[in-house]
Amino acid sequence: MGIHTYFQSLNDLERIIRCPGKFKFEEHSVSAHSWKVVQYAKTLADIEESKGVPVDWKKLYEITSSHDYGEIFIGDIKTPVKHSSLELRAMLQKVEEGMIAHFIDEHIPEEFKHIFRRQLREGKDNSVEGLILEVADKMDQVYEAFTELQRGNTEKEFVTMYREALIKIKNIRLHCVDYFLEYILPDMVNEASHSPIDIRKITNEALAF
Amino acid sequence: MGIHTYFQSLNDLERIIRCPGKFKFEEHSVSAHSWKVVQYAKTLADIEESKGVPVDWKKLYEITSSHDYGEIFIGDIKTPVKHSSLELRAMLQKVEEGMIAHFIDEHIPEEFKHIFRRQLREGKDNSVEGLILEVADKMDQVYEAFTELQRGNTEKEFVTMYREALIKIKNIRLHCVDYFLEYILPDMVNEASHSPIDIRKITNEALAF
Amino acid sequence: MGIHTYFQSLNDLERIIRCPGKFKFEEHSVSAHSWKVVQYAKTLADIEESKGVPVDWKKLYEITSSHDYGEIFIGDIKTPVKHSSLELRAMLQKVEEGMIAHFIDEHIPEEFKHIFRRQLREGKDNSVEGLILEVADKMDQVYEAFTELQRGNTEKEFVTMYREALIKIKNIRLHCVDYFLEYILPDMVNEASHSPIDIRKITNEALAF
Amino acid sequence: MGIHTYFQSLNDLERIIRCPGKFKFEEHSVSAHSWKVVQYAKTLADIEESKGVPVDWKKLYEITSSHDYGEIFIGDIKTPVKHSSLELRAMLQKVEEGMIAHFIDEHIPEEFKHIFRRQLREGKDNSVEGLILEVADKMDQVYEAFTELQRGNTEKEFVTMYREALIKIKNIRLHCVDYFLEYILPDMVNEASHSPIDIRKITNEALAF
Amino acid sequence: MGIHTYFQSLNDLERIIRCPGKFKFEEHSVSAHSWKVVQYAKTLADIEESKGVPVDWKKLYEITSSHDYGEIFIGDIKTPVKHSSLELRAMLQKVEEGMIAHFIDEHIPEEFKHIFRRQLREGKDNSVEGLILEVADKMDQVYEAFTELQRGNTEKEFVTMYREALIKIKNIRLHCVDYFLEYILPDMVNEASHSPIDIRKITNEALAF
Amino acid sequence: MGIHTYFQSLNDLERIIRCPGKFKFEEHSVSAHSWKVVQYAKTLADIEESKGVPVDWKKLYEITSSHDYGEIFIGDIKTPVKHSSLELRAMLQKVEEGMIAHFIDEHIPEEFKHIFRRQLREGKDNSVEGLILEVADKMDQVYEAFTELQRGNTEKEFVTMYREALIKIKNIRLHCVDYFLEYILPDMVNEASHSPIDIRKITNEALAF
Repeated sequence: MGIHTYFQSLNDLERIIRCPGKFKFEEHSVSAHSWKVVQYAKTLADIEESKGVPVDWKKLYEITSSHDYGEIFIGDIKTPVKHSSLELRAMLQKVEEGMIAHFIDEHIPEEFKHIFRRQLREGKDNSVEGLILEVADKMDQVYEAFTELQRGNTEKEFVTMYREALIKIKNIRLHCVDYFLEYILPDMVNEASHSPIDIRKITNEALAF
Repeated sequence: MGIHTYFQSLNDLERIIRCPGKFKFEEHSVSAHSWKVVQYAKTLADIEESKGVPVDWKKLYEITSSHDYGEIFIGDIKTPVKHSSLELRAMLQKVEEGMIAHFIDEHIPEEFKHIFRRQLREGKDNSVEGLILEVADKMDQVYEAFTELQRGNTEKEFVTMYREALIKIKNIRLHCVDYFLEYILPDMVNEASHSPIDIRKITNEALAF
Repeated sequence: MGIHTYFQSLNDLERIIRCPGKFKFEEHSVSAHSWKVVQYAKTLADIEESKGVPVDWKKLYEITSSHDYGEIFIGDIKTPVKHSSLELRAMLQKVEEGMIAHFIDEHIPEEFKHIFRRQLREGKDNSVEGLILEVADKMDQVYEAFTELQRGNTEKEFVTMYREALIKIKNIRLHCVDYFLEYILPDMVNEASHSPIDIRKITNEALAF
Repeated sequence: MGIHTYFQSLNDLERIIRCPGKFKFEEHSVSAHSWKVVQYAKTLADIEESKGVPVDWKKLYEITSSHDYGEIFIGDIKTPVKHSSLELRAMLQKVEEGMIAHFIDEHIPEEFKHIFRRQLREGKDNSVEGLILEVADKMDQVYEAFTELQRGNTEKEFVTMYREALIKIKNIRLHCVDYFLEYILPDMVNEASHSPIDIRKITNEALAF
Repeated sequence: MGIHTYFQSLNDLERIIRCPGKFKFEEHSVSAHSWKVVQYAKTLADIEESKGVPVDWKKLYEITSSHDYGEIFIGDIKTPVKHSSLELRAMLQKVEEGMIAHFIDEHIPEEFKHIFRRQLREGKDNSVEGLILEVADKMDQVYEAFTELQRGNTEKEFVTMYREALIKIKNIRLHCVDYFLEYILPDMVNEASHSPIDIRKITNEALAF
Repeated sequence: MGIHTYFQSLNDLERIIRCPGKFKFEEHSVSAHSWKVVQYAKTLADIEESKGVPVDWKKLYEITSSHDYGEIFIGDIKTPVKHSSLELRAMLQKVEEGMIAHFIDEHIPEEFKHIFRRQLREGKDNSVEGLILEVADKMDQVYEAFTELQRGNTEKEFVTMYREALIKIKNIRLHCVDYFLEYILPDMVNEASHSPIDIRKITNEALAF
């Protein structure tokens, strides 16, 4: 029933916890994650711009801030389920898109419908902005997993999460990825010395993958 | 890697919260829910037996205690998604069953495989035990929603949850359903006097549905 | 020691809770708040644009996403303290700015220093973007307070918070403020019927102020 | 006032935390513990049956699911108190039994009184079912303590809890205990390599006790 | 092993929650309760002194600050159990005293033993200081229960807790009790207007008891 | 509006968490901290008395129990901000004192005003009682930081907090400080063997400072 329903629904994402079912020393809500992705993406885009790559800031704003809004409708579906088959994955994406479309039809006033359809689209396309979103999203996975491992969490899922996010990032061709690999990641790994898990080794294996 | 992996995995269900994303005054884990379903089902089966209906207690034990074990693999998928289309629902069930089968193949020792396959099957068939499980499962939905509404929670989802669970229960032909409608539900509704929401009216509408 | 230190520090804002010391049914972290401000501001800017007002999206992105980053350094200082005297307020702002400047000097690499100095500046100036940030920030105060009041929270602070935020918003000359007052606020107030507190009356008094 | 009062009381056990007063990385409610005991007992009974031992599943269902229901009346009494003197222990058990009897007298309808008296009796007798319950109950103590130790918890209570539960288990003559000692416990101990505490040594000492 | 063991044990009381098993909107630890009792008692003693009654401040300090230290040993035992029989009550008190004595014997250095024996004694005797402690302890029960009732908590336990604490207080002959009944309680009850429960009526009934 | 307002405000300190923004395995409220300071101070004063130093117990009671009451008005201001400049520090203290004075003027009845002015004064003067308060306050910082470090927390803030509190303590000339350094601190450090951080080394460096 209007923009109010949309604004109010944002609160729901504060109650959806990432990586449900696994033990963690610190929980992260989807809204806190979304904010960190917005922040990483801003700096990543600054790096691209500093190398002369033009950035569409309006598009970047739109796709980073809303990239997990769909979780309001589909809730937390575990990554292994999402990826268990291409068929299921496509089906799930179709459902999520269908529910977003339904929400817009029902709640968003006529004059804003086209704006919300654009904003709540899947943002991870092959544009610079779409790739920056992908890097920022995976970067938060790296930080979340790293922090758990460093505190002594021995759930294997965090090793997997850390490694797969690193592999995804390193295969994206952006100046900011080079910067991340050369400056940010080494600083992070240098802090890992107290961990019972050999984070440096996992990192090197992922980079060599 | 054996029964240990299975036993250890039970802990995961303590960290999966029911009805994610909605505000609630009190959270319930899937494991606490599972225990309450086991307890309700025991009394419901006692009522059936007292009316001369034979109960297979081993089967009832198996299907009630494990009825949400599959959530370890698929996580919390919101009810609207599950039911958004028959096609998706069937697909999701296929995936859940596939992941359970995969878990048994990989972790359960040969001599127990057939036992786990039986125990982790979908238990809600048309046998007395399957129907008791369905009633007990919906009864916990009634209690969870009632308690939120009574404390003044105004999320519409809890009204829907309460009403739909009641409708499901009243359409099942069991002696224990009669008992629930005649003795248990009235006691519950009598406590609702402080609520800002008219629980009695919602109850009567659901029963007349 | 580089961008890593900055990225890692973002996690701190997930642990700073807004409005400390007051009872609330639901807590909000500064990071969740920041994300909601980013989201509101996006739609508010869409409304301005639709009325022909040009929006600098890069600036809006920068100032909304980082508007509470300074709380990492100064922690939660209660609003009454901030405003207890103009002298103290100015002093506190000077300290916050000093600590941000110090952080940039110490941790941000030379080539990004000018970017961070711009991004972490006080964003609430009199530009369209600065005013949109002010509206979005106050709008979250309205939503946070409204939600508590509607659930029966009787802490007077939430009545004050609700009223003062409304008064701040209505005195800002933007198309999106008109839209908020005409469409969004009435939808919100219509949901307030269950509350023991007369939210409609508080709202009308604030609007007539 | 009827079965509703009993069903509603089950919720209380979600709010009673095991091992109160000691620091733990993860809390467990009595209801989550109860569900895990039900699950372990099911598999332990499957092992007994596979060795030709007859199992009374109805009895096992009744005593495992309700074995800690009495904590609703007596709350969390620390193990050292329970065991500080045989006299006190007997007195406490008398009080718990008295309060359960009182609850049944007051709330359970006449026709169910005999059923509840049987179900809420102390289940740990010398029958196969009683012994399986004892093993399952202690097994959860082993898992709870192991998990804390493995994450680096240095509270001595968890070392004591782990060792005493192991000693209790190994002195029970059941096929499932043999299975536990031969297959499950070694898998668990093999995961302990990261712990600052030498769990393997504690385990071996307990087994040699 | 010395005063360190005692100092470190204080932390345990931060993890013991009052009134376990009952739903509450806000939990209170035994340590937070202990601090509030210390604070109330200070003002109550100021009132006595202002009426010319001499106060032994060292004694008051000792008995208020440590009045619930014994809960470290016996944990949370529910009030109904404590009072279920005079015999059990005496037995429980004997056990608690025995465990405190044992703790002092084992951990407190020789030269402090007599001090700790005095400080950890039961403080609620008939001296002015003992009576002030009783009033302060019950006053926190009044505040805890009142706050829950005012927020709409419908657990009957809080009505009972509120009423019984009031009755205990009003039967103690102290100037500060007169002050409480004449000035503090009316201010509290005047805030109760939003509650679904008629707190004023419960209060008047308790005072007339 | 009277003593009720003051008593009720005590509850606020249960919701203010110490050291906001930093990751910790266990949170401490200001009220739990205040109680521990009261308890430490009592034993520290016993040590002074046993060496023939006279202690004003009423004064000690007043200043230890209320030493952080002012946080109700100013909330959590981070230590680095407090100390960033002498000018700001003085200003902040002036504001806190002003708000306390304002609270007493507005809420405390005439006949108690002088008592509250004395009790809520800054207690850390150079009297024996003022110094004991300073030691007790820093001792809780030592315990809080030590416990985090021992559990593997790698936030640098806790190393700083531990070291600076130790340095503050060792520079105070009291018998109880000698006792702490000779008996309590060594017992604590002996427990640190499991920590990934070399607490013994940090301790020795602080003592040699």
